[in-house]
Amino acid sequence: MNVAKFGGSSVANAEQLRKVGDIIKSDPKRKFIVVSAPGKRFKDDTKVTDMLIQLGTAYHNQQSYNDFLVAVLARFKEIINDLGLDSSLIGEIENNINAALRVEGTLESKMDAIKAIGEDSSAKILSAYLNQNNIPAQYLNPKDAGILVSDEPGNAQILPESFELLYKLREKNGILVIPGFFGYSKTGNLVTFSRGGSDITGSIVAAGVKAALYENFTDVDSVYSVNPNIVDNPKEITTLTYKEMRELSYAGFSVFHDEALIPAFREKIPVCIKNTNNPDAPGTFIVAEKETSEKCVVGIASDTGFCSLYVSKYLMNREVGFGRRLLNIFEDEGISFEHAPSGIDDMSVIFRVNKFTKDKEKIVVERIKNELKVDTVSIHRDLAVIMVVGEGLVNTVGVAGKAASAFSKANVNIEMINQGSSEVSMMFGIKDTDIDAAIRSLYQTFFE
Amino acid sequence: MNVAKFGGSSVANAEQLRKVGDIIKSDPKRKFIVVSAPGKRFKDDTKVTDMLIQLGTAYHNQQSYNDFLVAVLARFKEIINDLGLDSSLIGEIENNINAALRVEGTLESKMDAIKAIGEDSSAKILSAYLNQNNIPAQYLNPKDAGILVSDEPGNAQILPESFELLYKLREKNGILVIPGFFGYSKTGNLVTFSRGGSDITGSIVAAGVKAALYENFTDVDSVYSVNPNIVDNPKEITTLTYKEMRELSYAGFSVFHDEALIPAFREKIPVCIKNTNNPDAPGTFIVAEKETSEKCVVGIASDTGFCSLYVSKYLMNREVGFGRRLLNIFEDEGISFEHAPSGIDDMSVIFRVNKFTKDKEKIVVERIKNELKVDTVSIHRDLAVIMVVGEGLVNTVGVAGKAASAFSKANVNIEMINQGSSEVSMMFGIKDTDIDAAIRSLYQTFFE
Repeated sequence: MNVAKFGGSSVANAEQLRKVGDIIKSDPKRKFIVVSAPGKRFKDDTKVTDMLIQLGTAYHNQQSYNDFLVAVLARFKEIINDLGLDSSLIGEIENNINAALRVEGTLESKMDAIKAIGEDSSAKILSAYLNQNNIPAQYLNPKDAGILVSDEPGNAQILPESFELLYKLREKNGILVIPGFFGYSKTGNLVTFSRGGSDITGSIVAAGVKAALYENFTDVDSVYSVNPNIVDNPKEITTLTYKEMRELSYAGFSVFHDEALIPAFREKIPVCIKNTNNPDAPGTFIVAEKETSEKCVVGIASDTGFCSLYVSKYLMNREVGFGRRLLNIFEDEGISFEHAPSGIDDMSVIFRVNKFTKDKEKIVVERIKNELKVDTVSIHRDLAVIMVVGEGLVNTVGVAGKAASAFSKANVNIEMINQGSSEVSMMFGIKDTDIDAAIRSLYQTFFE
Repeated sequence: MNVAKFGGSSVANAEQLRKVGDIIKSDPKRKFIVVSAPGKRFKDDTKVTDMLIQLGTAYHNQQSYNDFLVAVLARFKEIINDLGLDSSLIGEIENNINAALRVEGTLESKMDAIKAIGEDSSAKILSAYLNQNNIPAQYLNPKDAGILVSDEPGNAQILPESFELLYKLREKNGILVIPGFFGYSKTGNLVTFSRGGSDITGSIVAAGVKAALYENFTDVDSVYSVNPNIVDNPKEITTLTYKEMRELSYAGFSVFHDEALIPAFREKIPVCIKNTNNPDAPGTFIVAEKETSEKCVVGIASDTGFCSLYVSKYLMNREVGFGRRLLNIFEDEGISFEHAPSGIDDMSVIFRVNKFTKDKEKIVVERIKNELKVDTVSIHRDLAVIMVVGEGLVNTVGVAGKAASAFSKANVNIEMINQGSSEVSMMFGIKDTDIDAAIRSLYQTFFE
């Protein structure tokens, strides 16, 4: 039994939903279906969830909201009519919206109820469409599915007892279509996960029913080994481990919502990223473990917006607690750091630059000078991070040499190397202006 | 005005002292002379300081100590007779020893008084020898020189007011011969520095008199770029910065007592390491700053006895305080760590293996598993560290590539790279069995 989750673009209109129907029909293992709210149909389109947020905001600000209501209903009406489904569904959705607007509780709780309409309606539409096409299916509300969550609006956390309840769904007949993005608290409130939460629902259901596979349908054939905006037609990744995915995500690969995979990860359920528009493409598998192949580099990710602060002090490594005191200054000033490599008489702190204003820089530098009596302190903004990722990479002779040589071939100076902390990646720091040249050279070295 | 310090082997016997006399005579800038106690004359010889410790220990344990006293006096008698100096000096030394044995105070204070006899006698002998050879010189007791220290037996710290007192010595005529290794507390107690403390005295005097150069005479022509036990006839280092020296010392280069150079470092006084047995060799200069040359790698050091502990945990980097809690466990268990590189979902802690027993390992691993709920934890003993050291290295394109390639040429896997924390070094972790092969390959790459 598999779980298949279809993202916003896969349920954006009737044409896409027909593809979804064909995909479900083509493999009887696809028993548990999780759907997002209708996404964009074209570049400048508005996602249904965003329309619902506008609607809810206007309502609660006691502004006119009828235009938003009409627009939302028009999106669903178009889909329902194009699929030739019973138009009573439109009335049902309208009733749901009106009920959601009148939910009791805090503003956040009310908004959660409204935001959830998108996924809920998608699930009802898909279920009706499947039945129309003689595929026995039923819409299953998350409450009935057993998705119990903490009462934190917009940031629900799954409760452990959910998994046992979900496991019982295996006994139900036919296909079960479950809306993503929300669950219910023990007191019966609808609560949403963080944004992108349909991936979370899919992962929870996969873990609960102990799925053989969690298929995640999007609009790309697979995950690329490198950013296709930097390298033309890069190699596709066939198999990725969870660890590899995490390392690539860190430096800009937007494969998955960070926390979405935790439930599936804990149960070691393989995940497959597939394309609704090209379901025959093999896609990219994300697995707990894989055999180490000869070619151990699986992907190269890069991200900008880092900053490094360097301090040196003669005999620093004799000074007990120096590092702790340096990092305390960062903590005091509300800057969370990413890495803090230390040398003998030197230490660097790497952090994301976004909250590090010029004023903050002045304060931090002054405090370091005054409190730690260092010899030098310097700041390098505009640092970029490149991750060379692959299981087995750390135990393969020559990878570091090849990677470092790729930088020098591209005439790029390496500001920082961090290898050995991770078993599946090497991290390099370079100037952000060098990023394209470095990535291309690394890609050539490891993939061509 | 220069300070010249002569180590134990330079004052071990009359032959060596004649060389010292010639060296002092050959350059009138050598005004301040600091001497160690007589060291070994041959491989299995005993240093005078060790003989004095045996003597003092026997005396304070109320055991027979006469044999030790005779042996110490014999060493001095031999030198004094061989140099043809007035034999009244021997009686003076014997009187000093007897006075030292009867010093009031704690056992540590008494031992300090006895240990200092070696340096004190060396200075008296050298001064007499210089005068005999028509070089106007005088023995100067550290109390009269102005070397005021804290009252911590065996670990004296210089008091700041000493430097002003020392500066006044510039006005004295002739050569001043000062015994190394000890100073006096404000209450008049003789207190020694930590072992190897004659280097400290030299550095203090150099800082105090604002010497143009601090010459440190030993028994090697210079500092080698790499351990000569691994590479035959390695290149000699002409100039080294303080920073470079510190990095090399960390990984096994025994250039200097770690803290010895601080006073000289603070005053930016250049230091020259020279050979008493070959004073015409240019030696190795240690300076505050040097021009970055093309060839930026100055030395390659290596040291064994490191251990790494690796932990991984899915979504570690989302967990605030994980690193701190991991390092707290180390602190709790009394293991001080050297480095703690962190990845996304991984962290390593590098530490010296000497205090990490198998029992301690079990405790630490259990605590990490129980308290931090990690996915994996593993220990790699037998880690060696290689430091590739040179100012400007970090800003030179290609050095990392060359270094990493040298490891792969030698078929050595790199377990860890730490670059960017230090501006003057790259640190590599490898298996200690690979150390010779790696060092030879690195030497070939950077020096041949």
